[in-house]
Amino acid sequence: MTSIQSSDQGQAPLQKLRAYLHTTQLLGSIHSALYYDQNTAMPAAGAEWRGEQLALLAQQLHGRQSSGAYADLLAAAEAQWDGASGPMGRNLQLLRQEFERQHRLDAALVGHIAQAQAQGYARWQEAKAKGDFSLFAPSLQVLVGLRQEQARQLAEPRSCWETLAQPFEPDISKARLDALFAPLLHELPALIERARSAAARQPSTAWDLPESSQQKLCQELLNGWGFDPNRCQTDRSPHPFSCTLGPADFRITTRVVAGQPLSALLATAHEWGHSLYEQGLPRSGDHYFPWPLGDATSMGVHESQSLFWECRVGRSQAFAQRLEPSIAAAWSLANPGGGANPGSPSPWGNSQGFWRCLNPLEPGMIRVEADEISYCLHIVLRYELELALLEGDLPVAELPGHWNRRMAELLDLRPSHDSEGCLQDVHWSEGLFGYFPSYALGHLISAQLGEAMERDLGGAGSIEARVAKGDEASLKQWLGEHVYPLGRQVNGEELVKQVSGQDLRAEPFLAYLRAKLERLVAP
Amino acid sequence: MTSIQSSDQGQAPLQKLRAYLHTTQLLGSIHSALYYDQNTAMPAAGAEWRGEQLALLAQQLHGRQSSGAYADLLAAAEAQWDGASGPMGRNLQLLRQEFERQHRLDAALVGHIAQAQAQGYARWQEAKAKGDFSLFAPSLQVLVGLRQEQARQLAEPRSCWETLAQPFEPDISKARLDALFAPLLHELPALIERARSAAARQPSTAWDLPESSQQKLCQELLNGWGFDPNRCQTDRSPHPFSCTLGPADFRITTRVVAGQPLSALLATAHEWGHSLYEQGLPRSGDHYFPWPLGDATSMGVHESQSLFWECRVGRSQAFAQRLEPSIAAAWSLANPGGGANPGSPSPWGNSQGFWRCLNPLEPGMIRVEADEISYCLHIVLRYELELALLEGDLPVAELPGHWNRRMAELLDLRPSHDSEGCLQDVHWSEGLFGYFPSYALGHLISAQLGEAMERDLGGAGSIEARVAKGDEASLKQWLGEHVYPLGRQVNGEELVKQVSGQDLRAEPFLAYLRAKLERLVAP
Repeated sequence: MTSIQSSDQGQAPLQKLRAYLHTTQLLGSIHSALYYDQNTAMPAAGAEWRGEQLALLAQQLHGRQSSGAYADLLAAAEAQWDGASGPMGRNLQLLRQEFERQHRLDAALVGHIAQAQAQGYARWQEAKAKGDFSLFAPSLQVLVGLRQEQARQLAEPRSCWETLAQPFEPDISKARLDALFAPLLHELPALIERARSAAARQPSTAWDLPESSQQKLCQELLNGWGFDPNRCQTDRSPHPFSCTLGPADFRITTRVVAGQPLSALLATAHEWGHSLYEQGLPRSGDHYFPWPLGDATSMGVHESQSLFWECRVGRSQAFAQRLEPSIAAAWSLANPGGGANPGSPSPWGNSQGFWRCLNPLEPGMIRVEADEISYCLHIVLRYELELALLEGDLPVAELPGHWNRRMAELLDLRPSHDSEGCLQDVHWSEGLFGYFPSYALGHLISAQLGEAMERDLGGAGSIEARVAKGDEASLKQWLGEHVYPLGRQVNGEELVKQVSGQDLRAEPFLAYLRAKLERLVAP
Repeated sequence: MTSIQSSDQGQAPLQKLRAYLHTTQLLGSIHSALYYDQNTAMPAAGAEWRGEQLALLAQQLHGRQSSGAYADLLAAAEAQWDGASGPMGRNLQLLRQEFERQHRLDAALVGHIAQAQAQGYARWQEAKAKGDFSLFAPSLQVLVGLRQEQARQLAEPRSCWETLAQPFEPDISKARLDALFAPLLHELPALIERARSAAARQPSTAWDLPESSQQKLCQELLNGWGFDPNRCQTDRSPHPFSCTLGPADFRITTRVVAGQPLSALLATAHEWGHSLYEQGLPRSGDHYFPWPLGDATSMGVHESQSLFWECRVGRSQAFAQRLEPSIAAAWSLANPGGGANPGSPSPWGNSQGFWRCLNPLEPGMIRVEADEISYCLHIVLRYELELALLEGDLPVAELPGHWNRRMAELLDLRPSHDSEGCLQDVHWSEGLFGYFPSYALGHLISAQLGEAMERDLGGAGSIEARVAKGDEASLKQWLGEHVYPLGRQVNGEELVKQVSGQDLRAEPFLAYLRAKLERLVAP
């Protein structure tokens, strides 16, 4: 492995480049801090000024990443390195790619996008609260136009949508997505039908837990999964998210939804999975930080890590069995009538019933609350609509109608208002197009990495066996050895191949779903 | 009044200057946002990186405020304005003064100070938690040295301490402070003695309220005093503070202290007073924003506004009478044994007893919890020690000893550990020297403005009469007409003279204290 310390001669240009990247990273993390505050603390009237702040930082960042001074530093480092492979070669290759991308963009466009994002977010919040898409439509129209202009300026040998998707999923193509999604479109409807036929076995969902109980359960879950309050802060936000504000400053948020007593807990499991990946990336020490190799390689891989902890662990039968006594105690506390009588049944009946509460099999309107079976169809819907908005001829005003029609075709569901339809996700409010497929890739990657993990940990069923013993630490350790340290040395599909020995495919995910479904619908 | 729109010819240089100042203000408010996050959300391990972020912003700000480009813009505007008086003349005069101040400072020193502030804050938190001054002493030593260097570079015709105090209290001098403090040092000991002789009349302080009740009471107080959640966010922090993150983005924090059921409420009243002033400054529209005239004129005036709402309103007998039923209800809820029996006495007895709870007359160790009589002696202590550290020969290591000795002389109190001694305040952790006297000036200014307000609102006692009716809105309106709109058109003492018709002096404050004390100790 070539080290950046391997050549005295090579140090000066690389050290200069490193110092420059360090300052860039400081600015980028200031941007993240403002984003976090915007979503957790900022009062609504602060949105306009915050938009100007974020636009200023975005322009500064763009300036630093496309300036002549940076170009010179990068060229000097490349000349010194002279095509050598190894981590530093990969660093320089990634920096060059990103530089070319930034260099092609107008500074003015970058500023406009940042400001449109902040305004779009504010309008979206209002539109969602009122269930009125027309309040957000003008902002979305602006964002679509700005993103199309961005793709034009980038002028990559890819379609508009593919170009916009690259930062999230390097090297992804529509053809590859179509190939990966085809088996899902083929088999998921039958699985949904199988689940529907067993819907009578679903336990009552007419129960709830007080916010304070949910917060306590979230904290207990985090404590059991290695949470360190010295390095991570939790908060509440309208849409749960995870972000990194510095090398030792991690944040995750959750939300409490009335009538959904397990929503905050599963969102916490999900965001904590993201944060564990961030916390495990090879950033400490001098080698990768602040080099690109220390970053996450793709949003699909990122999502595989959140889904692993949310679905593979948090929604597993073994975890349900461990969790149930805590939930039952919280429920009894909040329902002293039932709680006073030890013989009175909890709303979910037995432990199998509680496991079903963690895995409702009714397809729902809301993507972030969807079950594992129908989830990927939510993604296909969004993927199709993004293609239609950006590359097809779908007018923004007709988005709700198309959403609702396709929702009916794919999931047999009809949103009663746009808040549970096309306004439900935060992404478009900030003009993030090309992002959604990574969520589906995350399911596929999580399943394929899970197979590899089980090979190492004792064969099929070994993940559940560890969870049953409360030994999530061994799962975290395996990921910390095989997945987290890779950073951006490989792209998402390469990572899967390196860790699992096979190309990414849908079959491990479908096999996992089939088996889980049969156990879930069993009496 | 000269308007910036008065001359077509004059617009270009002023418009350019305005755009430049706007960006500077954006950067400054990003700094404020990071500071807010640091104190409310950031995990401890994030401190080092946050220090680097703040240092980067401080350097950028210093660069903008001392650059040749800015000098040219300012000179062009001055040439255009050509000495004319009126608001824009005052704006340019304040900008020139600030420019000269920034221009004299090394960029490197500015960066070092910002980093030392972040590190000092982290060390102080640890030292305070452990009650061990020695953990913080090295950071304080660094901060003292950097501030002395700052004063040397500024090279003003003032002492080191006076130079450092200018940003907080423009035009202040040690001689003026000594003159204002002399009547306090002369009369306060007798008032403390009078209060002590009546200490047997103090109600029990051995009661408390749950955090959730305190939070609810804080929110009720804010709602009654014009709080708008659309423009302001509340949070918790180790040391309560108020800050402005944008023209329509205000934040205040409070803290809950075990065993002090009214501490969070009074801190909320205090910080809300600061925020009302900020929200009332003449910043909206094109005229003053982002010009300096839209800023607060001095920390003494700022503090007069927080103290007005905390002490003059929140600790008044009329407010105590209105507040008592809510507190009694909260106390009964938390003490169902007492609450179940309507005849059982609350811990404070009658309404006069509750008023005494809002105004404990025992001098205490902690400045922010001190009563109005002893408060200014806490300030004299800090003022003397700052002079000794910065201009005298007091070694940092001997600070706790000197603190404790002088505390005994002034207030007859002996701290048992440094957390309730010289580690209690946040200010020195960030090297803020020259700030404390503004707190005492705030008491004096609040009293003198209160006299002027009562002249307008119906004579002596009219403030309490309004509070008794729940008509705090009329007090807010008076301040919004006479005080808030002045911005930096006048300095602190000029403001007092303009509003009250007299030079600032200690007598109105002492007269207010004498009268309140006699009513408080009455049976």
